[in-house]
Amino acid sequence: MTAPNRAPRALLPEGLRDDLPPWAEYEAQMVDRLMAVAAQHGYRRVAPPLVEFEDSLLASSADQRAHFPDHAQERMAERAQSMFRLLDPVSQKMMAVRSDMTLQVARIATARMGAWGRPLRLSYAGHVLRVKGTQLRPARQFRQAGVELIGSRSLNADLEIIALATLALRDLGIAGLSVDLVSPTLVSAIAQQLGLDDAAAHEARRALDAKDAGALADFGDEARGLLTDLMAVAGSAVEALDRLDALPLIGEAAVIRDNLGDLARAVSDRIDDLAVTIDPGESRGFEFQTGVGFAFFAAHVSGELGRGGRYEVIAPDGREESAVGFSMYLDSLLRAVPEPTEKPRIYLPFGTEMADAQRLRVVGWRTVQGLEPVDDIIVQAGLEGCSHVYENGLARSLDDRTPLSEE
Amino acid sequence: MTAPNRAPRALLPEGLRDDLPPWAEYEAQMVDRLMAVAAQHGYRRVAPPLVEFEDSLLASSADQRAHFPDHAQERMAERAQSMFRLLDPVSQKMMAVRSDMTLQVARIATARMGAWGRPLRLSYAGHVLRVKGTQLRPARQFRQAGVELIGSRSLNADLEIIALATLALRDLGIAGLSVDLVSPTLVSAIAQQLGLDDAAAHEARRALDAKDAGALADFGDEARGLLTDLMAVAGSAVEALDRLDALPLIGEAAVIRDNLGDLARAVSDRIDDLAVTIDPGESRGFEFQTGVGFAFFAAHVSGELGRGGRYEVIAPDGREESAVGFSMYLDSLLRAVPEPTEKPRIYLPFGTEMADAQRLRVVGWRTVQGLEPVDDIIVQAGLEGCSHVYENGLARSLDDRTPLSEE
Repeated sequence: MTAPNRAPRALLPEGLRDDLPPWAEYEAQMVDRLMAVAAQHGYRRVAPPLVEFEDSLLASSADQRAHFPDHAQERMAERAQSMFRLLDPVSQKMMAVRSDMTLQVARIATARMGAWGRPLRLSYAGHVLRVKGTQLRPARQFRQAGVELIGSRSLNADLEIIALATLALRDLGIAGLSVDLVSPTLVSAIAQQLGLDDAAAHEARRALDAKDAGALADFGDEARGLLTDLMAVAGSAVEALDRLDALPLIGEAAVIRDNLGDLARAVSDRIDDLAVTIDPGESRGFEFQTGVGFAFFAAHVSGELGRGGRYEVIAPDGREESAVGFSMYLDSLLRAVPEPTEKPRIYLPFGTEMADAQRLRVVGWRTVQGLEPVDDIIVQAGLEGCSHVYENGLARSLDDRTPLSEE
Repeated sequence: MTAPNRAPRALLPEGLRDDLPPWAEYEAQMVDRLMAVAAQHGYRRVAPPLVEFEDSLLASSADQRAHFPDHAQERMAERAQSMFRLLDPVSQKMMAVRSDMTLQVARIATARMGAWGRPLRLSYAGHVLRVKGTQLRPARQFRQAGVELIGSRSLNADLEIIALATLALRDLGIAGLSVDLVSPTLVSAIAQQLGLDDAAAHEARRALDAKDAGALADFGDEARGLLTDLMAVAGSAVEALDRLDALPLIGEAAVIRDNLGDLARAVSDRIDDLAVTIDPGESRGFEFQTGVGFAFFAAHVSGELGRGGRYEVIAPDGREESAVGFSMYLDSLLRAVPEPTEKPRIYLPFGTEMADAQRLRVVGWRTVQGLEPVDDIIVQAGLEGCSHVYENGLARSLDDRTPLSEE
């Protein structure tokens, strides 16, 4: 009789992988650290299931979709296609495996924790699955971890989230951090100020996202001038904020602009050692944001480490709440952190007293108990990944076999 | 523009749930503790993906299945039906969501870590999904956590695993622990000693599993006597071991019996405060085990906390290895542990210095920062789930508003 575990040349599906030592422990510890930093700041952990009814994961009610602009509609369609679907034999309804957790957390905040006081601080971490990888992110399974602050429109909420993200990333040993602040609703508001029609507004957004000044050639003088000036504002907050302030904006566009400026200044003033850039014309990737959006980067690491921003959530009773949060993806973070090192492992030859083993563990050793006598303890210790062996009450290094320390 | 998060009356599918504060954090910390105890004993964490090709999760090669006895075949069929299946659009092959992680870990040990030295100690934790819940376990998603010790046939390996499980469960605050040791191959070996045919052996196993002495009426005198005596052996190891030793067994049956007895005595002698029972005629639920199997229980908690035992794994090159491990399910453990309590939360009124907040966190407070001035700090602190407020450098309890301690 033999256990059914032969998995011979059977490779894993593309984009899925086994995490081996020491990486699996390292990634789990990174998630723990992120959640611990969030907990210290009053964020309480929630855990939605891996699988839900497909509709819940898409928020697909028609009246809700009607609130989205075109570009958010497209993102919803992408999201639907990104999820694995499963027929639930119990309910006979379609379920899906989550491809993102933020909607689930918003659902919990409103539908499950609607009676909890506001503002509500929540944290979460878990795996997400996507049907296909992308060039930038070939993995189809990765861990997401994040926080959401629900029920405050204060700029201090945005500031708290950005400060917390900074602290959490720094806590992981990531240096050279920068944050890029964007204002995804600004171009639409400017289009309104300029009296542009929908098609022109769409083209303006596209041109700004692509930083394609040429695409603005057909716009009238005023629009072309303003949008070109807006495009030129992107860059270090220190230099760009004055140019942002100088843009001739009125009404909602001015409010949105001032909001970005105020937050960028607050972040620069209050958070040390964080480079701040702004890109007020950018909206791509922030289609659901209703206020400032932001993305974190580290020097010498390609791609963003995490992102977040302000958005609106709707409770089951129709009440609307403003929220701000950020999400990190562990596959991105793993490219930015130092290589993991294993904790020191000590081989305990067969017959070592249990009390000795316990004493070694208490002071931080990872003990590997010999299960039977072996010919060469040093060879066996090496086979089992130990750096040291325990002999005569001493921890000896495998390298030099001289005593390193009293047990 | 509104974020797509309305999930109104949409309930979760049956058997799936949201974990709310403080349960989500508590469960995550329990998993961390289990993994930490394993790491201290030299077990290295691995993390297989949630989804694999269906064949890998079933070990469905025909020549491998041929090794199983009938009752293991039935278990394989159950396992296949317990998994959600997904078509992989990339490979056009069927994948499945894991319903158990032990096969995955065995696959990693042989196919991915075949070149690592033996014995190999691995730990793992993760979510599993099942198509349907059972009466005993209605949840369809739960967390599994466990360890495997691969590549040693020594009884000391079984002992180490049982000792580690005991330590880990005790570390979670679970008292009144007992372990039940079973010997799932014993009845078949006795059937062989008695010269029973396949049908009679099957009936003997069924009768022993059901503790149905009446079903043995049609057996010959010798078989009925021996099997009835075996049935009567179940119970506390202190009393039952002598009866076990007295059974007139020879050959393989005697070896299997002695193995169970040796392990039960070693566990009784070497592990304190663990009640030991044996049930040598039991095999149900241990169909894949090739040596001693065991299940853990806690006084006043229904159902088992976790289980494990010895089994064989086959490497891609056909080499066979013996392994022993145990698995715990967090839904079971949550019924056995004390209720979670939240760490003390302190409300920091708007304007509290960041340095003050940091000092409070360093000494263990969870800080909740006021984002704007409020009319009544005490009311707001209560709304945000705080037990204390920070006023004039002091932590004041919401209950009595008298100073409790210097910050």
